[in-house]
Amino acid sequence: MVDVWEVKERVIRDNDQTAKEVSDKLKKRNVFFVNLMGSPGCGKTTTLVRTIRALQNKYRIGVMEADVDSKVDAETVARTGAKVVQLHTGGSCHMDADMTERGLDYLGIDDLDVVFLENIGNLVCPAEFDVGAAKKVMILSVPEGDDKPLKYPLMFTVSDCLLINKTDTAPVFDFDMDRLYANLRSLGKEMPVFPVSSKNGAGFDAWIAWLEKEIADWRKEHGENH
Amino acid sequence: MVDVWEVKERVIRDNDQTAKEVSDKLKKRNVFFVNLMGSPGCGKTTTLVRTIRALQNKYRIGVMEADVDSKVDAETVARTGAKVVQLHTGGSCHMDADMTERGLDYLGIDDLDVVFLENIGNLVCPAEFDVGAAKKVMILSVPEGDDKPLKYPLMFTVSDCLLINKTDTAPVFDFDMDRLYANLRSLGKEMPVFPVSSKNGAGFDAWIAWLEKEIADWRKEHGENH
Repeated sequence: MVDVWEVKERVIRDNDQTAKEVSDKLKKRNVFFVNLMGSPGCGKTTTLVRTIRALQNKYRIGVMEADVDSKVDAETVARTGAKVVQLHTGGSCHMDADMTERGLDYLGIDDLDVVFLENIGNLVCPAEFDVGAAKKVMILSVPEGDDKPLKYPLMFTVSDCLLINKTDTAPVFDFDMDRLYANLRSLGKEMPVFPVSSKNGAGFDAWIAWLEKEIADWRKEHGENH
Repeated sequence: MVDVWEVKERVIRDNDQTAKEVSDKLKKRNVFFVNLMGSPGCGKTTTLVRTIRALQNKYRIGVMEADVDSKVDAETVARTGAKVVQLHTGGSCHMDADMTERGLDYLGIDDLDVVFLENIGNLVCPAEFDVGAAKKVMILSVPEGDDKPLKYPLMFTVSDCLLINKTDTAPVFDFDMDRLYANLRSLGKEMPVFPVSSKNGAGFDAWIAWLEKEIADWRKEHGENH
């Protein structure tokens, strides 16, 4: 069973200041923190499960599943054996740094190397709230279309890495990778882009290699050696 | 070319009170107003274009395209010949009643019978803001999955009608209509559900018949005869 916590938004402190505190605390504890964002149904949970399975022999992994309601995602992720908590945002459409700080306390990070936050499925609000993550990873799925950078520019602008998920379904959609790259360029945005299928694992090697390198580099720069 | 207006959110009045004023004004002018909501990439624009084409010999149609940025959707819809304006929400993740009221003034409704608002692609915030529409129509697309009522319950609860879009792609996804209905029942929600493909038109006759009946019933109850 998965614990559920009602972590409602409260307006108390400057979000960026709190995000910096979260980030500093995680550096001290040597915990690499990923903020995973994307639309409803883009495949955040499936991607997370496959990513955990690829990393869990090497790192002790924790997950915060943030949802408006339900705990289906947390239960799915818990089957990997990772340490998981379900956070309910009380209707809020994003996680902020304060909610994240309390969520990390609730999860308990002393025995962890890597923590993922699966943010609320939303391309608007989560982009506006830094939560102190070492890396912001965004998922865009093929069915959503290649025009999304034009319509939700901030999410693409703030992200450090973009997964294009559900590539296995490309034959039934008219998603054009060249148009996607052109739309990213029109935002002046450059970042690693990994086409993947979280369903069948295609493209995962490159994404996992990137993530492992980021973890290693971050540890060299910020963390203590384990 | 399509006009673009920056319709930023301002906190001035109670949203429900403003929504009632919008609704009252539309009843006086005999304009049937639909608030169309759904995730990014669920097919709101494609659905709207096909719906306009099915209705435009009978009704004078206006459209407000709400986006955080870009005007690609408004330009697509304008090609139907409908009267279209693009609203930019200044980063806001939803339209509220006040923004809608100003948007309708900007569009100009004196020469219209039916107005559609294509809301921001988001399953959380738009559900919380009544905009004075006669009907709230929600689109869920097959690629998003049948579990969404559990995770975004308010959107499903407030909607008057649900389109399940992209049914043409069903063979490559494991969307289960029976599970969807069970998830809706678990919210205590009953509403008309129309599986459609806005790409190839499958299922559109039933959705258009429902919408035309709603327009006729609403006119009988509220409007003046044209």
